[in-house]
Amino acid sequence: MLPPVTKKRIYLFSPSSAVRNKAAVRRGIARLKALGHEVELDPAVFATHMRFAGDDDTRLAAIERAAASGADIALITRGGYGLTRLLPRLPYKAIARAIDHGTEFVGLSDFTAFQNAVLAETGRTTWSGPAVGEDFGVEGEPDEIMQACFEDLVEGQGEGSGWRLPAAEGREAPLQEKGVLWGGNLAIVAALAGTPWMPKIKGGILFLEDVSEHPYRIERMLTQLLYAGVLERQKAIVLGHFTNWVPVPHDKGFKLKSVVDWLRNEVKAPVLTGLPFGHVPTKVCLPVGAKVTLAAEGRDAFLIWGHLHRHHH
Amino acid sequence: MLPPVTKKRIYLFSPSSAVRNKAAVRRGIARLKALGHEVELDPAVFATHMRFAGDDDTRLAAIERAAASGADIALITRGGYGLTRLLPRLPYKAIARAIDHGTEFVGLSDFTAFQNAVLAETGRTTWSGPAVGEDFGVEGEPDEIMQACFEDLVEGQGEGSGWRLPAAEGREAPLQEKGVLWGGNLAIVAALAGTPWMPKIKGGILFLEDVSEHPYRIERMLTQLLYAGVLERQKAIVLGHFTNWVPVPHDKGFKLKSVVDWLRNEVKAPVLTGLPFGHVPTKVCLPVGAKVTLAAEGRDAFLIWGHLHRHHH
Repeated sequence: MLPPVTKKRIYLFSPSSAVRNKAAVRRGIARLKALGHEVELDPAVFATHMRFAGDDDTRLAAIERAAASGADIALITRGGYGLTRLLPRLPYKAIARAIDHGTEFVGLSDFTAFQNAVLAETGRTTWSGPAVGEDFGVEGEPDEIMQACFEDLVEGQGEGSGWRLPAAEGREAPLQEKGVLWGGNLAIVAALAGTPWMPKIKGGILFLEDVSEHPYRIERMLTQLLYAGVLERQKAIVLGHFTNWVPVPHDKGFKLKSVVDWLRNEVKAPVLTGLPFGHVPTKVCLPVGAKVTLAAEGRDAFLIWGHLHRHHH
Repeated sequence: MLPPVTKKRIYLFSPSSAVRNKAAVRRGIARLKALGHEVELDPAVFATHMRFAGDDDTRLAAIERAAASGADIALITRGGYGLTRLLPRLPYKAIARAIDHGTEFVGLSDFTAFQNAVLAETGRTTWSGPAVGEDFGVEGEPDEIMQACFEDLVEGQGEGSGWRLPAAEGREAPLQEKGVLWGGNLAIVAALAGTPWMPKIKGGILFLEDVSEHPYRIERMLTQLLYAGVLERQKAIVLGHFTNWVPVPHDKGFKLKSVVDWLRNEVKAPVLTGLPFGHVPTKVCLPVGAKVTLAAEGRDAFLIWGHLHRHHH
């Protein structure tokens, strides 16, 4: 006999900016339901206070409800801005308890602040992954790889992700490093430098992505992590996508590759690129705070976390 | 008999982005000469390497020449981006020696990185003030207050600056605080958090300005300084101009004033606004690293540094 199938519960909440495209969020909800999931909406999921999804108290209460929901997945509607304001007041104990009881927190972008603060305060693992509006709510079909990775996460089955390195970065000698995976949005990670919520990860695998930041700003943020000693403590740096920036004529050849070249010159750790993560449709799910193995040979790269202990309830 | 008039020497150098508007820099030079100054151009003042005024070695050599110039004033052509890359390699001892012998370093924006790193490493005072291209090189007449403050600095006569507080911020109870003045461009100051070049100023007067940063980004940068403990160590925070940002419809009332209100709620120190400094024509010269008195009563505010010991040679 097969074990009884447990219907998975997804709790949607809005910890950052106000949802602007409600239709997209509704489309995303419909798609998650069509996949067989039960989707519960936080009462403040469409709340608005200035550019935020409700004022600070409202968004904190939404986070508390997500932590108390007992859902399998607590998924954000969208990123934007707002979590940084809440870091001193996040209900860290309740979040840790929820994670210990099997709730996986999933999101990206501004959610990076939540994820790294939770890691710094509690050591718990959260997931960098999709947001319901921008990923499941797109017009047309959601990205297949994004959906497959999310389904693996929901089912507790994903054990890693692989990608293809750019041709110029193929490795003759195989690379294998083990460490705690952490990071996310570069602007948010850099904004944690010098604060109590910058995770103190030694021998880690740091992954980074960003959107709408010109390479000179990406470089400036990386100098902060470099000078703060963060980069030298990592075993590897893995770059996702840096999208939606506008070259200007006076760049005169200064581009994203210039920054990657500069970074490789400044740090001893290997710098890999092409990770399918960022503000792009094709994104994998990545466990922030989990011990992973980064392996690369030729043009094949993998992040492997194996079977994480999840879904205890 | 009057003392003999010493002709003042201004050394122009380019430590950050490449000069794009050479005509403006040439106009600025002509105006400084018309004011009776001797203006010396660093050989790399118009150098270009990608978006920089020469590669890192070129810009470091320019800074070394400025420090060795023996000039009364070492003035930047423009800001932009580039100094952050150089912080580990700046010739701090030579810069300190130059300052001790009477050379005043003057600039703003990206130059904030130089100024605060010099303060952190050497305790020496530099000046937040104009850049030759953008301030003296404007079409039409340069701003009168900017020119008068710069002339005071060149002559070693400026002892403070006053400004008018916004009507809503008039103080019934007089304010008087003494401390080290420091700061400058917010993005640069925030990018120093967690690094060895963030000045460890207790009981200071922190002034901040920025350009092309939306209020939500200004707030995020301020949260970093808040969480890093920087703001709570200051006796006062003085805000200059935050210009050239674009409101969007979904701000829904979130604006610069929202950020100032939030800041005043988060810190005990008084937060004054309206300082005539930033990416605006009317800018005063401010001694970064000097002990100053901040005084305010009614709508009148003053930063007073008295007679700084300068121009020893």
